[in-house]
Amino acid sequence: MINLHGITAAFVVCGLTICSSAHAADLLIDRSITKNEVLEAQRAWCAALVDISKAYETGGQSAAKALAEKVIDSAYAYDKGGVLFKPTLTVNPQTVRTTRAGALAYFVGGDPEFPNDKGFALKGWTSCVAEDNAIIILGDTATSLGKVRITNMDGSIATVDKTWQYIKDPDDHLRIVVHHSSLEYSDQ
Amino acid sequence: MINLHGITAAFVVCGLTICSSAHAADLLIDRSITKNEVLEAQRAWCAALVDISKAYETGGQSAAKALAEKVIDSAYAYDKGGVLFKPTLTVNPQTVRTTRAGALAYFVGGDPEFPNDKGFALKGWTSCVAEDNAIIILGDTATSLGKVRITNMDGSIATVDKTWQYIKDPDDHLRIVVHHSSLEYSDQ
Amino acid sequence: MINLHGITAAFVVCGLTICSSAHAADLLIDRSITKNEVLEAQRAWCAALVDISKAYETGGQSAAKALAEKVIDSAYAYDKGGVLFKPTLTVNPQTVRTTRAGALAYFVGGDPEFPNDKGFALKGWTSCVAEDNAIIILGDTATSLGKVRITNMDGSIATVDKTWQYIKDPDDHLRIVVHHSSLEYSDQ
Amino acid sequence: MINLHGITAAFVVCGLTICSSAHAADLLIDRSITKNEVLEAQRAWCAALVDISKAYETGGQSAAKALAEKVIDSAYAYDKGGVLFKPTLTVNPQTVRTTRAGALAYFVGGDPEFPNDKGFALKGWTSCVAEDNAIIILGDTATSLGKVRITNMDGSIATVDKTWQYIKDPDDHLRIVVHHSSLEYSDQ
Repeated sequence: MINLHGITAAFVVCGLTICSSAHAADLLIDRSITKNEVLEAQRAWCAALVDISKAYETGGQSAAKALAEKVIDSAYAYDKGGVLFKPTLTVNPQTVRTTRAGALAYFVGGDPEFPNDKGFALKGWTSCVAEDNAIIILGDTATSLGKVRITNMDGSIATVDKTWQYIKDPDDHLRIVVHHSSLEYSDQ
Repeated sequence: MINLHGITAAFVVCGLTICSSAHAADLLIDRSITKNEVLEAQRAWCAALVDISKAYETGGQSAAKALAEKVIDSAYAYDKGGVLFKPTLTVNPQTVRTTRAGALAYFVGGDPEFPNDKGFALKGWTSCVAEDNAIIILGDTATSLGKVRITNMDGSIATVDKTWQYIKDPDDHLRIVVHHSSLEYSDQ
Repeated sequence: MINLHGITAAFVVCGLTICSSAHAADLLIDRSITKNEVLEAQRAWCAALVDISKAYETGGQSAAKALAEKVIDSAYAYDKGGVLFKPTLTVNPQTVRTTRAGALAYFVGGDPEFPNDKGFALKGWTSCVAEDNAIIILGDTATSLGKVRITNMDGSIATVDKTWQYIKDPDDHLRIVVHHSSLEYSDQ
Repeated sequence: MINLHGITAAFVVCGLTICSSAHAADLLIDRSITKNEVLEAQRAWCAALVDISKAYETGGQSAAKALAEKVIDSAYAYDKGGVLFKPTLTVNPQTVRTTRAGALAYFVGGDPEFPNDKGFALKGWTSCVAEDNAIIILGDTATSLGKVRITNMDGSIATVDKTWQYIKDPDDHLRIVVHHSSLEYSDQ
């Protein structure tokens, strides 16, 4: 007990030598998403799209489907309750795919529950690049909006406007919770 | 000072009567966004679109512009560093409008810096409804993805796919930080 | 394609009957923490403290330790990189327990790495109540500050000032990331 | 309109030269709190404590109070609905100070509503250092737990265990939402 200007308190008074022995707590846990993590997640999505196309060329629909399931489970957060996914080419009344089955059907087709899906990832994509990113990081969630350009085996380049919102899962891996993709508008 | 099984400590031992006098701290601050706040923000955006159309009919471009500025400042977070805004009908190279000027030009036109903008809010909209919402609330940010149907004075209904991400500002008012709007895809 | 006041666009025009078939997206994912979840986590922590005391009475140190390990793994987020834990009765240079081993030693003692720990949970606690809560919810993290009153088998009541900060884990279970507990100050 | 493997779509096909003109959206908004911002906020709090002590020495209670009001408004988030503040030396039933008036009384005293407060910041503090920080950053909120050592004009050093939780306000300035300070426990 010491008396500090009238306040009696159990302040521990210490010399610097003794107190330095207390330096035991230094720790930094940072759950914030960084710009580089967003860019890496975009690259991973693009690489996966091309990989599924290649799997289809070499192994057929079953190989493509097996890979697409892995990609969806790794890149999307369907296991957290669903995803707000509006793919580029879906139509009413199945525009939005909040379930894993709906995402899988969009990427590789073949699901009678989604009869309009022909398999977007099976179209022979050879490269995919995300560009012109606007990014907002709100701590443990981040959203990007920009262009994604995908090149077909015939050399044509298709561009879509794409919004992705991510969360960070317990393994520090980004997972998509919102995905809105749309063809560029043209007034021609 | 009391002795608790060998631990000498400055525990304050008290009877229930005395301790009840300590009930002074009850406080709840909840910054989470609710579903109802998201739906209300959607309604406010829709109402503002119709109001700007009406202002244009009755007061011309200057009245529409004055109202649009108010709407943008109230509904969007441009003052927080920019917004990820991909309007429905913009074209390259000005597809995304990260600045307030770009948003204003889109809604009411008349800005030589954005020569393709004819004023989306000036087209005679008479009603606007957000439907089929998928919503994800990540605490102090929330995102909705769904259909927005807007009715024109000629009775036609246009539908867009729309993603809005919101934050809550210090006055507990939702502000749009991401807005991706796109025409529905049609394979016809 | 329709022409809306000079804007040629692929708007899908639909009657209400047709559009109602698009109602497929309704989904709500809400990761926000509620006040009730905070109160329930407090009750669970208190119940666990009493349970460990009972396990010690009936099964000795090994039973208490086994239960404490379960409690720590369920209630704290040590597996997320560490916890900011300042227990009530720790001393320099081991005041703060950022590791699981440090928390376990505090609750049940018996770890030569933490020679001052006698086992806080082994002291015969028969009830534990959190009161006078001030709570702040920042979406997916929440913090409470208040009094926790714990009653000993000899009938004495000890009160501590306690701050707990929680996150919600992927299973929607609250986990403690910060825990600061201190004896009430007394100028006597 | 182009035909991509059976999908008729309004893809905009472009050569690289034309598409490069679309690079207009690059934007990064990052609201995450950094470790350095936490350390700077700690330094600012410490500097303010010493400054209030100096203001008291040179200008008396009214000067100290005027400065303390500025410090509280800048460093704490009382204007956001209240703060979870458990100061080092408060006693029941006014242990926790959820209101600005309660914080001001603690720092400079002189408020008959808080009769036990003698003015913690008026005690002749000449230096203040935060050490041994454990920090957790959850995006737009961060919490530190560590030692704060404050030196008195008589040369004695007092150490407290201190938890601070911060949010970032719209001006990118950290504001305290939780503050739990306690004397070090001693079993002597």
